Amino acid sequence: AEESDGNEMDVETLSGEDIEARNTGDSREEGQQSFQWIIHPYSEEDFFSKYWEQGPLHIKRNSGYYEGLFTTADLDRILHNNVVQYTKNLDITSYSNGKRETHNPIGQAHAPVVWDYYNNGCSVRMLNPQTFHARVWKLLATLQEYFNSFCGANVYLTPPDTQGFAPHWDDIEAFILQLEGKKRWRVYKPRVEEEVLPVDSSGNLDENEIGEPILDVTLEEGDLLYFPRGFIHQGHAVEGNHSLHITVSTYQKNTWGHFLQKMLPQAVSVAMAEDVEFRKGLPRNYLNCMGIANMDHNIEGREAFIKKVGEMVGRMLEIAPLDAAVDQMGTGFMHDCLPPFLTIADKSCSVYGGGEKWSPSKKRVVNRVELGPDTPVRLIRGNCLRVVVEADNVRLYHTLENSREYHAEEPQYLEIVPESAPVVEALIHAYPQYITIENLPLEEETEKMAVVSGLWERGLLVTAQPLDASYDD
Amino acid sequence: AEESDGNEMDVETLSGEDIEARNTGDSREEGQQSFQWIIHPYSEEDFFSKYWEQGPLHIKRNSGYYEGLFTTADLDRILHNNVVQYTKNLDITSYSNGKRETHNPIGQAHAPVVWDYYNNGCSVRMLNPQTFHARVWKLLATLQEYFNSFCGANVYLTPPDTQGFAPHWDDIEAFILQLEGKKRWRVYKPRVEEEVLPVDSSGNLDENEIGEPILDVTLEEGDLLYFPRGFIHQGHAVEGNHSLHITVSTYQKNTWGHFLQKMLPQAVSVAMAEDVEFRKGLPRNYLNCMGIANMDHNIEGREAFIKKVGEMVGRMLEIAPLDAAVDQMGTGFMHDCLPPFLTIADKSCSVYGGGEKWSPSKKRVVNRVELGPDTPVRLIRGNCLRVVVEADNVRLYHTLENSREYHAEEPQYLEIVPESAPVVEALIHAYPQYITIENLPLEEETEKMAVVSGLWERGLLVTAQPLDASYDD
Amino acid sequence: AEESDGNEMDVETLSGEDIEARNTGDSREEGQQSFQWIIHPYSEEDFFSKYWEQGPLHIKRNSGYYEGLFTTADLDRILHNNVVQYTKNLDITSYSNGKRETHNPIGQAHAPVVWDYYNNGCSVRMLNPQTFHARVWKLLATLQEYFNSFCGANVYLTPPDTQGFAPHWDDIEAFILQLEGKKRWRVYKPRVEEEVLPVDSSGNLDENEIGEPILDVTLEEGDLLYFPRGFIHQGHAVEGNHSLHITVSTYQKNTWGHFLQKMLPQAVSVAMAEDVEFRKGLPRNYLNCMGIANMDHNIEGREAFIKKVGEMVGRMLEIAPLDAAVDQMGTGFMHDCLPPFLTIADKSCSVYGGGEKWSPSKKRVVNRVELGPDTPVRLIRGNCLRVVVEADNVRLYHTLENSREYHAEEPQYLEIVPESAPVVEALIHAYPQYITIENLPLEEETEKMAVVSGLWERGLLVTAQPLDASYDD
Amino acid sequence: AEESDGNEMDVETLSGEDIEARNTGDSREEGQQSFQWIIHPYSEEDFFSKYWEQGPLHIKRNSGYYEGLFTTADLDRILHNNVVQYTKNLDITSYSNGKRETHNPIGQAHAPVVWDYYNNGCSVRMLNPQTFHARVWKLLATLQEYFNSFCGANVYLTPPDTQGFAPHWDDIEAFILQLEGKKRWRVYKPRVEEEVLPVDSSGNLDENEIGEPILDVTLEEGDLLYFPRGFIHQGHAVEGNHSLHITVSTYQKNTWGHFLQKMLPQAVSVAMAEDVEFRKGLPRNYLNCMGIANMDHNIEGREAFIKKVGEMVGRMLEIAPLDAAVDQMGTGFMHDCLPPFLTIADKSCSVYGGGEKWSPSKKRVVNRVELGPDTPVRLIRGNCLRVVVEADNVRLYHTLENSREYHAEEPQYLEIVPESAPVVEALIHAYPQYITIENLPLEEETEKMAVVSGLWERGLLVTAQPLDASYDD
Repeated sequence: AEESDGNEMDVETLSGEDIEARNTGDSREEGQQSFQWIIHPYSEEDFFSKYWEQGPLHIKRNSGYYEGLFTTADLDRILHNNVVQYTKNLDITSYSNGKRETHNPIGQAHAPVVWDYYNNGCSVRMLNPQTFHARVWKLLATLQEYFNSFCGANVYLTPPDTQGFAPHWDDIEAFILQLEGKKRWRVYKPRVEEEVLPVDSSGNLDENEIGEPILDVTLEEGDLLYFPRGFIHQGHAVEGNHSLHITVSTYQKNTWGHFLQKMLPQAVSVAMAEDVEFRKGLPRNYLNCMGIANMDHNIEGREAFIKKVGEMVGRMLEIAPLDAAVDQMGTGFMHDCLPPFLTIADKSCSVYGGGEKWSPSKKRVVNRVELGPDTPVRLIRGNCLRVVVEADNVRLYHTLENSREYHAEEPQYLEIVPESAPVVEALIHAYPQYITIENLPLEEETEKMAVVSGLWERGLLVTAQPLDASYDD
Repeated sequence: AEESDGNEMDVETLSGEDIEARNTGDSREEGQQSFQWIIHPYSEEDFFSKYWEQGPLHIKRNSGYYEGLFTTADLDRILHNNVVQYTKNLDITSYSNGKRETHNPIGQAHAPVVWDYYNNGCSVRMLNPQTFHARVWKLLATLQEYFNSFCGANVYLTPPDTQGFAPHWDDIEAFILQLEGKKRWRVYKPRVEEEVLPVDSSGNLDENEIGEPILDVTLEEGDLLYFPRGFIHQGHAVEGNHSLHITVSTYQKNTWGHFLQKMLPQAVSVAMAEDVEFRKGLPRNYLNCMGIANMDHNIEGREAFIKKVGEMVGRMLEIAPLDAAVDQMGTGFMHDCLPPFLTIADKSCSVYGGGEKWSPSKKRVVNRVELGPDTPVRLIRGNCLRVVVEADNVRLYHTLENSREYHAEEPQYLEIVPESAPVVEALIHAYPQYITIENLPLEEETEKMAVVSGLWERGLLVTAQPLDASYDD
Repeated sequence: AEESDGNEMDVETLSGEDIEARNTGDSREEGQQSFQWIIHPYSEEDFFSKYWEQGPLHIKRNSGYYEGLFTTADLDRILHNNVVQYTKNLDITSYSNGKRETHNPIGQAHAPVVWDYYNNGCSVRMLNPQTFHARVWKLLATLQEYFNSFCGANVYLTPPDTQGFAPHWDDIEAFILQLEGKKRWRVYKPRVEEEVLPVDSSGNLDENEIGEPILDVTLEEGDLLYFPRGFIHQGHAVEGNHSLHITVSTYQKNTWGHFLQKMLPQAVSVAMAEDVEFRKGLPRNYLNCMGIANMDHNIEGREAFIKKVGEMVGRMLEIAPLDAAVDQMGTGFMHDCLPPFLTIADKSCSVYGGGEKWSPSKKRVVNRVELGPDTPVRLIRGNCLRVVVEADNVRLYHTLENSREYHAEEPQYLEIVPESAPVVEALIHAYPQYITIENLPLEEETEKMAVVSGLWERGLLVTAQPLDASYDD
Repeated sequence: AEESDGNEMDVETLSGEDIEARNTGDSREEGQQSFQWIIHPYSEEDFFSKYWEQGPLHIKRNSGYYEGLFTTADLDRILHNNVVQYTKNLDITSYSNGKRETHNPIGQAHAPVVWDYYNNGCSVRMLNPQTFHARVWKLLATLQEYFNSFCGANVYLTPPDTQGFAPHWDDIEAFILQLEGKKRWRVYKPRVEEEVLPVDSSGNLDENEIGEPILDVTLEEGDLLYFPRGFIHQGHAVEGNHSLHITVSTYQKNTWGHFLQKMLPQAVSVAMAEDVEFRKGLPRNYLNCMGIANMDHNIEGREAFIKKVGEMVGRMLEIAPLDAAVDQMGTGFMHDCLPPFLTIADKSCSVYGGGEKWSPSKKRVVNRVELGPDTPVRLIRGNCLRVVVEADNVRLYHTLENSREYHAEEPQYLEIVPESAPVVEALIHAYPQYITIENLPLEEETEKMAVVSGLWERGLLVTAQPLDASYDD
């Protein structure tokens, strides 16, 4: 089946860096470009209609395509300069003669010790390179603007002619970017209907229980391999070549079912509060006609009960708080997100780099700036905040103060009075356009300034230009 | 409005004890009779079509109607012979000049101290008289066979010309049985739609905020007053007469909404496991078109998303595990239930009174009995157990080992192998008829005996006759 | 060694019931009599100087000695009339061919099922007969007034020619009272110094690892066998005779060590609060001269540090709150205690039976009584309360509201103002004498009455005579 | 009193940087030098005999003394380059007209916002500058080698003519290093004996309740002010000058009392396990003669009990595990510690910088090094590990993998077999000397190598010279 099934394509020689790095100033557009760069030369339409959640795709490309993304030398540098911890940040693994082992010591992973394992045939997996590596952070932070779902990554370094992992499937959409050397990949179909698009990852599988691969290819530098969650896979570094790849992942637990899990309990609560029908008592006999002991007995009342449940659910759906449930998903996404990777321009036009500074020579604060009614502002990223009503307040959950380490910080938010919500909505819908403060939809000038200052002070806004110091320093 | 709205009726002189106490051998029939006795001379049809969950009903009856149910002397005896604890079992309260107070000391409620409070104008509320009083236990245990919902009770003793409680509403259907003396009751409509059939009880309300009563009657011995949850009420013992009444309650948190709260999360889980549609990813743009910040913006994708949610819920409903959800409600009910009140006949035909005994004279066990293939058996009560599949086992949750104190024991169950389930189903559906063991639907005679013995040993079965000792003692 | 070591003695024929039951009105004296009855005809002095915590003692007595204490028929009756639960209240065990098994089903122990196990050679252990049996409760409640330590009991019924338990040791002082039939006991010395007077019970031991018995006797009705904690033992019902005995236990975790565990942390806290020496910094070098890595190195500062620790502990001991620590032990004891077994006289002279009652005919409270300045009162038991200062309040922890089930209630106490403490102390020290209220050491008459009423209302006081109704009823 | 009490001294002009920075290769010696630099020109002997834990000391020095330690410009840079969070890392405070306020927003502290507060008269306190600032980290890490107690720091920036904090006392020994500008300090004696060397800090105190200062001085650049825990203090930036100081703190909860709190419970446990006297029962009457209700009554047994407690404590002390208790303090210290600040030499001679590296050009691991029998090694710091026996293993608790953020990591340790303990002890006692591996006290060469490799791989050892690559790369 493999190789010949049209799931790959040769592309002209291009450096990926060139394509990916455009700075358009619209984070969603940049996200789209980053994704297009990943699937190049396929079009989004092609990709989503033929492969996404459906089957594997191999793309052959020139060897310099990923230049500058991540190298084994980067890994070495990270090990020397950062506190990388086994198990939390890095795994040492092997898979040999059908036996999968993890060799993690405890404590900090020092380079010489890691390289010793590597020389002895162990694979090295770095679990969250974005924590330690700006370029990877930037890529993932950009992609999440496209996917509206957390984008993660692992880096895998495999010694020549070894394999680090048993066959298994994951619970994420996987994009494998071959950075150095070569690796032979075999990909297998989900075995049964229940394992298609699974919600959880598998354990280690046995070679005997996975059937024949539907794809058997050797990835080379610059190549991409995509496969959906649930597709079993295994990769083996070919003789004479070490292999380094990064797996970009997304769409973990981001399904219709997960949405309904959040939405339906809220919907019942709303229905019970707003519609007396849901507060009426159950029929006295329902325990006697329903239940598994009564399933095969056509007891009176059974049919009516089942029919009534359908009616009640339909009735519930009419007043179901879909938007609130989406917002709950959205705040979860805000918490999952990497913080935005800020450019020099982002910084100089925001609280991150603009504004007041300490002057050692003058021994006082200088560069005092102020936002004015005619200052044009916009959100720092298209998807950097989420408006939610909790209790009687409006909360703006945002990604700005997240850590590069997943969930290392609690969800961060900023509270505003409900009256100021239209300002935030206007900023959301204006994006990527700037809007001057005076044009924001709120009566009082001072209130507009207060809301905008609050957002600016938390790093959520950028001005079109760096602010000028309004005082003589 | 009061008195004249037809919500009361004079009935001929009858002692309630006579009507209620019939022992028909069918617990559900006895439950129905007990309920008919409570609403006598109204018919069930009348009651449920006109009053249940709709509005108050006052029934005038002769003064001996409740004879033997509960008296102030019973309360005195309980205080002397049992460890009754303030707050847990008994409250001392007063309501005077619009001020509601609780005067509970800590520790055990000794009779002299309670009577001192009473003499000083305090009301006495016993919270769960069924724990200490067999006749009340019997009434409630019987009624729950009718309602399929926990039946509780409080007893209230009020000194002449006083009131113990502020106006308020409860979260249960209330049947007030006037046992001694007189009490004037005023009943008010729920104030707003949201307070109709409420899920929780109110706090103390102010006289100013409750409007005019829709019923204003003085209950006398033998009278009944019913009103649905949410109806505000207050009762005042009339001058010269102490008042003793018992409030029988049911249908607490037993609504369609509560059922959906249990059912819907299970339904999503089943749908996610069984139908790949629910494991497919959400549309990439859903966070940008849905959510409260987007409600008033007709963003592309919004309409489609909402439509799709409707379709998914409909699809989910087709495979929703309604029976399993009912069983979950059912096991909750088994845990809530009072244990059955056993008659002498119940005991002599069950493990409670039949079978092996110790002979002090022979210094050995005597009266060895055995169930045989031709022994007719049936469940000890119609609603005493619930069949549930948990993991791979079948569990029979039952009420037999519950305490008379609410939830004092953990849920009790007995596990059987799935193959034996038909025997239990046959016993359920045969009730109130007896069935001989040999006629139970299972292949092997020994297996039938094993299942039946297991049920008999836990007290779930009665034989038609006391078993004969099968050995010569 | 056995039989011949003088650890037993024949006594004249006497019924134990006669000796034990005297009601002297002084609970400590009654406790002493009960204990004397248990070790009769040994004297306390003999017993404590030769056997207590030292070695086993077998006393032969006449067969009627324990008449009325507990019988197998009592056990049968308890199983029929009470909710006895396997594991919590009752164990079914066997020991055969060196294998110890527990056969407990789950749920309620119904008599026919228990007798079935017994007929199949299983032993029956009732874990806390005092919960279900008044005579046992009375004995233990009386004994704890003597021991100032919780007294518990287990009942063991063993079929003829069987053994229910493997050899083992317990963590309590054991008094085995042979009630019915015969049992052969073998008792072994603790194996090593560390197992002398152990703090915890052993697991099941193997016959091979316990050496030779130092005592090998057959207990008959009326006999007593005592052995200290740590002595290994096993009992076997002899052929042709079932055996029933009750083991009375005491002094569990009631050692000097347990006292020091409570006292020393308090002592440091007090020392740190009151003496600045304890708040001074440790020497800078102590980590470098002390610690196991430095034990064998005579580093400078080591000797001085060790010497200083000795001085500090000595200094601490001078202000150590010994009384507060004893009180903490004492409140623990109050919580462990069985509630007092009240006689008819106790009841009629206390809140339990005296005072106000409800008159059904008069439909009001009658028999109103009042304590007067000349009413003589005393504590209901010598050891029924403990005075403790917690925060700024004085708490009287007491045993009156304990359950007969061990620790089923939280510790119960009554708070008084510090000014009233002398009244309680006077009552404690007067016991067993009565003292009139007017003679209690407090300025104001009304305050005396208030304190005494508070104690009387909680059941802690008895009057010398039943109070007369002070009003005409 | 102030100024004139001899608590200050003028010193010749010297830059502190010159004195402090010597690298002697012995961490304890370097710690001592750092401390001498802090109290210069006082001698240790002088300082500890006259001031430590006794009273305040002001030292006047030249303005360049602290050059390079920390500046307001450093603070500005930290705010721009790090995620500094309000409350966790930084406080905005004010104290004006007797009112102390904290103005912390939530979330990240952005420089422009902080400077805005400063311009409005608020003080800025950075709570743990060592987390963000290498020079401060180095100073504290060095000092803790001297004190054997955690050394922390706060930085305070105060606008001209303002005060940020109310009078209060702290629970640490405080060394205030005036870095920029001037601040007037008033120091007051502890008010009562109980507040001398207190275990906890005070709340904000009122000017009225603190009496007169015993010291009133204006600190200038290069000055030092020391005062013990418990001394009340307040500082006010003088008109026309902002003030920046760093407070170095140590000896928090490091007293004899804290040691006894750890030691005594262990001592009882050991005594109970090893000495049967501690497992013997308490006297039956102790509850009746001891306790606060019996304090003023000379009841028999009381005196004997008190005497016996003294004897038991004395007996306990003879076998008390002082070393184990010190080790428990020591592991606590290991956890509290800052990780060592590593020099370039430290790195190149340890796992941090030496050993295997990745060669991008050769695409394989190079610079393979190996420890040999004649390699001289020593601990990386004198106080970097603690040997503890837990259960049957020997654990080496160490500071190497601690975070610069206090307690951000769990206690880190490495387990070795008990047989290897002498190797570690030898390394501890050899420090600061190197010892060749072959001279370590263990039989087998391979075992020596294994232990040393284990320590080297965790970063605990340095070699005398960087290791040579033992293979040709």
